[in-house]
This record gives sequence, C-alpha cells and structure tokens, in this order.
Amino acid sequence: MELFTKEYYMNEALKQAKIAFEEGEIPVGAVIVLKNRIIARAYNQTEKLNDVTAHAEMLAITSAANYMGAKYLNDCKLYVTLEPCTMCAGALFWSQIGEVHYAAQDEKRGYRKSNPEILHPKTKVFQGPFREESEQLILDFFKKLRK
Amino acid sequence: MELFTKEYYMNEALKQAKIAFEEGEIPVGAVIVLKNRIIARAYNQTEKLNDVTAHAEMLAITSAANYMGAKYLNDCKLYVTLEPCTMCAGALFWSQIGEVHYAAQDEKRGYRKSNPEILHPKTKVFQGPFREESEQLILDFFKKLRK
Repeated sequence: MELFTKEYYMNEALKQAKIAFEEGEIPVGAVIVLKNRIIARAYNQTEKLNDVTAHAEMLAITSAANYMGAKYLNDCKLYVTLEPCTMCAGALFWSQIGEVHYAAQDEKRGYRKSNPEILHPKTKVFQGPFREESEQLILDFFKKLRK
Repeated sequence: MELFTKEYYMNEALKQAKIAFEEGEIPVGAVIVLKNRIIARAYNQTEKLNDVTAHAEMLAITSAANYMGAKYLNDCKLYVTLEPCTMCAGALFWSQIGEVHYAAQDEKRGYRKSNPEILHPKTKVFQGPFREESEQLILDFFKKLRK
C-alpha cells in the first residue's frame, strides 16, 4: 500500500481495530496524523479499562495531545474506522482537529444522528476508505459474541 | 449544611470547582454519589493535563467506574457545577447514569443546545442548587484571566 495516502492511514486504523477484536473489544481503531506522521494509535478499550470513555478516538486525542505537549490538534488528521459517537465528536470539537476521516457509518450512535454540527466548524469531514472492511469487522464481532 | 442532601453534594462539587479556580483551570467541579456516598470527586484539568477531554465529569466518570469495578453507573448520581457539554453528555449517555444534577446553565456549550436528547432516556436531569455561586465563580475566573 502506498505510504502517506488516506488508504495507508485508514489501514493503520483498521489494524488497531483488529487488535481490539482480538482482545474482545468492539473493534474500532484510530490513528492521528501530523505532517504525514502517525503520532497516536489507539483502539477501543472500554472493556479492559472498565470505562465507557475509553473509545479509540478519546484515547487517540489524549495521546496526540500528550505527544504534542499542546491540547489543540488544528494541524492533525484523525482516521477512525467508525463514525464517531456524540461523546467523541464533542471531544473532537474541543480539540479543533483539522480533519476527520471515518470509514463505516454508524446510523444508530453516530454523532450525525444527534446533531451533524457537533464538530468544530473548521474541521473537515471525509468518508474514508475501508468502509466495508470496517463494517464487516464489527458485524463479525457481534456474530462471534452471540455464539 | 445538612448531610446527604442535594445541597450538600453540590457544595462538594463546588469545592472541587474552587480547587480548579486556584489552579488556573476553568472552575467546574463534579462529584458522583452512590448510595449517599461520594465515590468520585473531580475538577476540570484541561490545562494541567494538556487534554481537552479532561473535563470534571469525564474524570469523575472514569474514577467512579474504577471504584466500582464496573463501567455502568445506573445507580449513581452526578452533581456538577456547570451544565455538561456535548462530550460529557455523550459520556454520561454511555454510562447510563441514574441522575444528573447541574448548577449553572451553559447557554453556549451546554449539551441541550446540541440536542437535549443526548443523555440516556433512563437518566433523570435536575437543575441543582448553587446555580448563582457556580456561575459567579466562572465569571470571576474569566474576569481575572482578562486582567
């Protein structure tokens, strides 16, 4: 896969989601990119941490801010395998992140259902690649869970 | 002040907000109560932690879940000095918290402006006591900041 493309970054987010899958977590992964460099990688850890706030995006925001020593992420891009929920979109608003790329849509819990205007007006939003793979991973997870 | 009343708990949240004030943080404080007992206390630490996700409510949710060893807070009550923002309301949704009591309203960034239905349908919401004190503390903070 060609480096430094949106496919490359979303695939890296998908790798994080696959780690979540293996660990029994709802498989969502995220990376945050600054100047072509991945500065944060995270996957959903709500089960392991017993913490509803431990979504991939939240952990990635905290990690990226920690890396930068600054809390605003204006020059950063988030790649996440599932449309952010209301909580994560609210956090992304505060971070003023430059771009949000998400793969699968979340019709039920995605932020757009609450209010598509939650994100910061400066944030550009893209439906990213690997939509089907990201959706399938989540479907497979719940199928396995029901067994 | 009489123990185990909503005034008592909100005053404890206000004490947390005053610590935030002293530490140069936007002064918002929160406590989470389980069976009349305060199981988590937190104040906004976005500056100190360089992290936009470090709102009082988020830290309190994580702390309460950690105390309980469980991530759902159905039997818990949150007391917070300011109306939760969209991010915090989204987190409170996931936590399925039993009650939310907030003091000051936040006309600009409060969750009700995004969508008053963000909280879990089971969560009861109350406008709590100490509204004026909580508002004044925030006004004093920004007045001091501008000097």
